[in-house]
Amino acid sequence: MFGDKHLDGTRRRFDNSPMAGTNLVDLLSGVRFGVSYLLSGGEKDAHLKAKEICYEQTVEFPEDITPAGPIADSIVGKIEEFSAVGGGRFRARISYAIECTAGTIVQFLNVVFGNTSMQPGVKVERLFLPNRLIGAFRGPRFGREGLRAFLGVPSRPLVCAALKPMGLSAAELAEQAYKFALGGIDLIKDDHGLSDQVFCRFEERVARCAEAVARAASRTGRRLLYMPNVTAPADRLLPGAYRAKELGAGAFMVCPGLAGMDAVRVLAEDDSIGLPVMAHPAFLGSFVTSEEIGFSHGALFGQIMRLSGADMTVFPNWGGRFSFSREECRQIADACAEEMGGMRTIFPAPGGGMTTDRAQDMRDVYGRDFVLLMGGGLHRHSPDLTRNAEYFMEMVSSL
Amino acid sequence: MFGDKHLDGTRRRFDNSPMAGTNLVDLLSGVRFGVSYLLSGGEKDAHLKAKEICYEQTVEFPEDITPAGPIADSIVGKIEEFSAVGGGRFRARISYAIECTAGTIVQFLNVVFGNTSMQPGVKVERLFLPNRLIGAFRGPRFGREGLRAFLGVPSRPLVCAALKPMGLSAAELAEQAYKFALGGIDLIKDDHGLSDQVFCRFEERVARCAEAVARAASRTGRRLLYMPNVTAPADRLLPGAYRAKELGAGAFMVCPGLAGMDAVRVLAEDDSIGLPVMAHPAFLGSFVTSEEIGFSHGALFGQIMRLSGADMTVFPNWGGRFSFSREECRQIADACAEEMGGMRTIFPAPGGGMTTDRAQDMRDVYGRDFVLLMGGGLHRHSPDLTRNAEYFMEMVSSL
Repeated sequence: MFGDKHLDGTRRRFDNSPMAGTNLVDLLSGVRFGVSYLLSGGEKDAHLKAKEICYEQTVEFPEDITPAGPIADSIVGKIEEFSAVGGGRFRARISYAIECTAGTIVQFLNVVFGNTSMQPGVKVERLFLPNRLIGAFRGPRFGREGLRAFLGVPSRPLVCAALKPMGLSAAELAEQAYKFALGGIDLIKDDHGLSDQVFCRFEERVARCAEAVARAASRTGRRLLYMPNVTAPADRLLPGAYRAKELGAGAFMVCPGLAGMDAVRVLAEDDSIGLPVMAHPAFLGSFVTSEEIGFSHGALFGQIMRLSGADMTVFPNWGGRFSFSREECRQIADACAEEMGGMRTIFPAPGGGMTTDRAQDMRDVYGRDFVLLMGGGLHRHSPDLTRNAEYFMEMVSSL
Repeated sequence: MFGDKHLDGTRRRFDNSPMAGTNLVDLLSGVRFGVSYLLSGGEKDAHLKAKEICYEQTVEFPEDITPAGPIADSIVGKIEEFSAVGGGRFRARISYAIECTAGTIVQFLNVVFGNTSMQPGVKVERLFLPNRLIGAFRGPRFGREGLRAFLGVPSRPLVCAALKPMGLSAAELAEQAYKFALGGIDLIKDDHGLSDQVFCRFEERVARCAEAVARAASRTGRRLLYMPNVTAPADRLLPGAYRAKELGAGAFMVCPGLAGMDAVRVLAEDDSIGLPVMAHPAFLGSFVTSEEIGFSHGALFGQIMRLSGADMTVFPNWGGRFSFSREECRQIADACAEEMGGMRTIFPAPGGGMTTDRAQDMRDVYGRDFVLLMGGGLHRHSPDLTRNAEYFMEMVSSL
């Protein structure tokens, strides 16, 4: 089974070679990671809630019967800071032993927010990750520098087109890809609704689109990547990615909200793949659309996606048809670029909303290090898709 | 790769053997499934939102450039019903072609709520599933009847104990399992925070707990199941489940919020496993804790988990330390038992909250067809875990 290698890989990460009879205290490094939670309610209630989180997220046991010693002292979360943040909310920074995470994304997220996700009035604001925990993950394989180097685009924003709408055949989507590629687009992705439908099979689509993009590239002499949506059932994610690579895919897009919170990591870490990964936010919206629950935009779409190894993280730009604010988008962009234990910086990939009017504002927030996702706009500007692509490439180049 | 068999398996499900050049219209069966969404806001806004959902969840394309013909007529969602439900909210029932789902849980959920999850004020209330779509999934392998038959418990509620707290060694947890098993507990599960930590490795825990439970069963002559938490990284879920079965696990618990929305299905459908599956709600809470976004309790923890193949679906009972109401719990229980294209009925598994006071009220809501999850209560009643188990088994038997 191909999982075994990873089992061992993970095992090495925090393993202090425990012997039978080794005490818990000898197995813990003492290194802790932190989570700041925003808590709604009065100060007393908020503090009680913080204390409950310390237990709920670890021992899931009442305080009075939690065994004294290293379990109470080190496994149970600790409130490191508690303060008012205004607007009737409080911030509690709680620390956990890194060993509780088992060095995996799934168990890390379980400790951060597993059962507490069912508690109203608790929002994960920010993660504080020590280098030892960050070191358990490979992180982004390419990041900004790697992608720019591959594409030969040193400084302007990158542009990504989406193949759509659902219902077109693989041949029709490949024709679209060809036209966009001729127009100089950097990245061409499947729309996230393209799966393995009877009217457009995954393998046929990947084969045709990869071929079309390669053909266009040989005409223009420019590099670009075709990025299929590899979101799939649990037992088809890696096989699908392997097959897509064989068929000529240059990168992958995946929706961790659907394929699992570990989907980005498994694609990014697999050395037999070795291609860039774009994380798409489908089905993750309920974590951010309420002010009082879930995650902050920066923690979910920035910190977690980067830790998972995404080279690009998609989210809807402000002013489009979704509700993310300019400030929330900036938060994501900041988390893509801030110092993070030596991990590569990654691209925020705001979707939609690019107009000549808004170009300067996007430049102000993102600088030039972003991937502009173009959907309907690229199709609608005129009936000539290649000319539309050229038009937007020119606009982006002038930023 | 073991995924290929499933690829072909899925392919058969809706496949009309498309030939090159086949028209889209010939590939669609005309069968549609429905989703009722609750929409906040004024009537005009809510209706506009419903219309946007029809496009967003399918073509993700502006209406004015969506190709006329079968894409506009059949791929785009259709508003089948729109009505006020009071409290300033509206219900829109929207239908989609079943072929859009590709016959998979992940793409089904993507069509139901993918990008719309990022839209505030939209909640999925209920799914309307035609038999042809339900037939794409195996569903629960055991269900109520199968589990009752295996355990030899014809009618009383089942009782499930949780091994905890995090920080105990595999040997200590196995001792706990042994004591609970002697006391007559039906199902013994890992706490959902037990993963593959350095202080309690997955393989050692499963081996020791399975052995302890088998030893107790041979003393009592009663059947019971040890149910490890197999929630794991994407490439370790199935290998871990296979290994756990080899080591004596009798069922599995998994957290689809962490391991992926397809995790329950892949475990339930795999014929080389063939064990009962319990779905745990960790990390799914943000979908239900706000009234205005996400899913209804019944849709998420009832309909979706059952469609995925869970034999038992865990959720926090009312009156405990979480916020689910009595009515929300009843909604889940109803979805576990209602007619659903011939799929087996499954057990609601309310966690916590069982006291002698509340016993009759639980009986009123759940009848006798539920799994009572006992956490701290089973540990706290007295220091003698076997006696505690006996005490609660007696109480439950009298329901």
